[in-house]
Amino acid sequence: MPKNIVIGGGIAGFHVLEDVLKRAPEQAKNFMLITKEKLGWPSTCGIPFGLAGEYDLKQLEIRPPSYYREKGFDVKTETEVTSINIEDSTVSIGEERIGYDKLIIATGRKPFLPPIKGIALEGVYTLSTLTDAFKVEKAMKDAKEAVIIGAGVVGLETAAAFSSKGIKTTVVRSRAGSLPSVLPLNIDPDMAAIVQKRLEDRGVQVMASAAVSSINGKEKVESVTAGGREIPADLVVVATGIRPEVELARKAGIEIGETGGIKTDSALHVKKGKTYLSNVYALGDCVEVISGVTYRPVLSALGSTASLQSRVIVDNLLGGKSIVPFYLSPFVTSIAGLQVGSVGATFHTATNIIGIEPIIGKSTKLTRARYYPGAKQVTVKLLFDCERLIGAQVISEETVAERINLLTIAIMKELTAKELWLMERCFNPAVSLMTDAIVDAAMDALNKM
Amino acid sequence: MPKNIVIGGGIAGFHVLEDVLKRAPEQAKNFMLITKEKLGWPSTCGIPFGLAGEYDLKQLEIRPPSYYREKGFDVKTETEVTSINIEDSTVSIGEERIGYDKLIIATGRKPFLPPIKGIALEGVYTLSTLTDAFKVEKAMKDAKEAVIIGAGVVGLETAAAFSSKGIKTTVVRSRAGSLPSVLPLNIDPDMAAIVQKRLEDRGVQVMASAAVSSINGKEKVESVTAGGREIPADLVVVATGIRPEVELARKAGIEIGETGGIKTDSALHVKKGKTYLSNVYALGDCVEVISGVTYRPVLSALGSTASLQSRVIVDNLLGGKSIVPFYLSPFVTSIAGLQVGSVGATFHTATNIIGIEPIIGKSTKLTRARYYPGAKQVTVKLLFDCERLIGAQVISEETVAERINLLTIAIMKELTAKELWLMERCFNPAVSLMTDAIVDAAMDALNKM
Repeated sequence: MPKNIVIGGGIAGFHVLEDVLKRAPEQAKNFMLITKEKLGWPSTCGIPFGLAGEYDLKQLEIRPPSYYREKGFDVKTETEVTSINIEDSTVSIGEERIGYDKLIIATGRKPFLPPIKGIALEGVYTLSTLTDAFKVEKAMKDAKEAVIIGAGVVGLETAAAFSSKGIKTTVVRSRAGSLPSVLPLNIDPDMAAIVQKRLEDRGVQVMASAAVSSINGKEKVESVTAGGREIPADLVVVATGIRPEVELARKAGIEIGETGGIKTDSALHVKKGKTYLSNVYALGDCVEVISGVTYRPVLSALGSTASLQSRVIVDNLLGGKSIVPFYLSPFVTSIAGLQVGSVGATFHTATNIIGIEPIIGKSTKLTRARYYPGAKQVTVKLLFDCERLIGAQVISEETVAERINLLTIAIMKELTAKELWLMERCFNPAVSLMTDAIVDAAMDALNKM
Repeated sequence: MPKNIVIGGGIAGFHVLEDVLKRAPEQAKNFMLITKEKLGWPSTCGIPFGLAGEYDLKQLEIRPPSYYREKGFDVKTETEVTSINIEDSTVSIGEERIGYDKLIIATGRKPFLPPIKGIALEGVYTLSTLTDAFKVEKAMKDAKEAVIIGAGVVGLETAAAFSSKGIKTTVVRSRAGSLPSVLPLNIDPDMAAIVQKRLEDRGVQVMASAAVSSINGKEKVESVTAGGREIPADLVVVATGIRPEVELARKAGIEIGETGGIKTDSALHVKKGKTYLSNVYALGDCVEVISGVTYRPVLSALGSTASLQSRVIVDNLLGGKSIVPFYLSPFVTSIAGLQVGSVGATFHTATNIIGIEPIIGKSTKLTRARYYPGAKQVTVKLLFDCERLIGAQVISEETVAERINLLTIAIMKELTAKELWLMERCFNPAVSLMTDAIVDAAMDALNKM
């Protein structure tokens, strides 16, 4: 009998199996994973690039269930857990009850569907699973005009994909009231303007300040009304965010936090009543985490967050002592060849949730020596409290991910503007600049302190 | 009359002018720069790529002297300072004496020429200045077979350049006794093997364990004898390191450290007798610095070091208080398309100078999701003391510079293996991997702790 049960076959659930394989493959026989899906480990983050034709969508099933079964795991696909029974440490699959020593909840998320008239019409899709992706891929074949509802990461990546395939594409916002710029949760409006311009240069129409009012058509979608305009559309993707999938946990009496995600301690144990349960963990999109900039609960629905949490849980299962007390949620995307990354507080977060107007440092330079072929522009924006880094945003065609990773450590270790300005950086004209944009952005902030 | 005199027209000297322009351009009129060279700000680091034909070597004069003169600086080219006179705060140019309020010594380095028979033959070059580079470029036109003496950075970059131009190229070491691998000062032999293989794949013969015994020929070079073999050669480049150019300073009574570089305090003031002089600074290849891993004086002959020191000096000149107490000298190069970087202690430094055998973590993975087109291999090697990072080496065709910059902060901030293992990193399949090679290398080290 398996002793450890993982509920959920998304990135988070399968990552637990991956970490078991990496750390203690002989333990595989003690793990069961139960998933509603038919597929194995999915890379949902890769969907938009697959739609753009960068690779076959089928490749996004990173490993099939059979791979894990061969390693000794008990993987139950197309199987739904109907309840978690904390009182006797079992999970129910219909009538059947299976006991666990340790339970790992990785139930993921569901797409958030705003109450828009016409959202149930044929030709309107979400992009949350690989199954969704295959449907959209098929719909793209006949599509001439598409509307993307939502100017967040998935919306913009998908818009770029559609446009690259010759579909006339318009992005509209789902809600009035929020910031009238793209990627409003990730970057400030001045940085968003760079992304919007890139999309427009690639033929995408971005109506960042227009919120959708209705989706129109008889059976099949024909148009979308937004900002008072009717935009013809034979394909609509609703990418308006996600909500944690917590129904199983909620029904089991596990505490759900103010954000709608499962509440956990720093080792990812869930809470029931007044205590955190030592034998029940949760991770991934279904949990809330503590933000390392506001120290308040937030959702960090990132594959990278799930992967880190998997490391923590498996380490604890194997007898280690690992915690992650708070999260900065570094983020990177690639939109029409433009890499966009951020970490920590945006200007909006700083002023509205932290409570200060941050000191800004900004610089646009090249990624390599200007005489070196292929040097790209890079724009770096740094946000400081009175002296320490609290947020960062970077846009370029290269080097963005590693810059964001560096700035993540910088925020974690409370680096000051002066430290960033006087930090040693390696130089070679083929790969870097002698005085980097990060250094000049730090100087820019120092000049205002 | 200028109040601040900079001696030297290399990267260090001109970088001081650059920082003045950036911070306080109205102060330009108070700066005089005196250089023996005819050219302006040179990017000597760019020479090998220029020889490879990536761009015209002429582009490596980043800005001509006239640029700085137009900004108000007094730039004296083809002018040699014959003495520094601390006692009356003047420098001599022959008979002329010019007074200074602040003096900045940036006399740079000279190539180290080992006592090899035949080193003065025609067809034997060094690659220390742009003038050297133009000579070598000319010699390459008729060259069929070249030997590079020295398996350090300049040697290997140049070998790759020669080979890419169809010249049959052999690299030999200058000295017996040291580590029999390429880039011995920067990376460990296991990492060096990756670089050597790349060079060999590109047609370069690397005799990493053969030291040169003579350069042969009548007037013009005909061959090089190394490891008992005679290698035909009509072009030889001696790239056997550099020595600080400190004669002016030494004659002025300024203290020279045990490494042969000018001794300075953390703000780059030079020392004379028992005191550091508040009005005389030195920077760049002519100074020694304190290593941040051994806490002993070392030479850090990097353009990036000079650039950081320039920032420190100009800030102090402008009334700021900046110091850099020690240096990790992060380094990156690009050899035949392979980016090679390192920072902090190598295995050799750890065992021989720090005094411990470091705990090693190593991992080879991809730079992006494996299904994403263009993903490259990356090898990361991390060196830890009992728990903290003390050194790092990275090789890949991309992302190396920013990884080294991140690991530089990690060493500076004394990150542990566990912290690196549990560090948040951004993920997007187009630009990164969900569990990066740095994370797995940290895990590998943790397994040995």
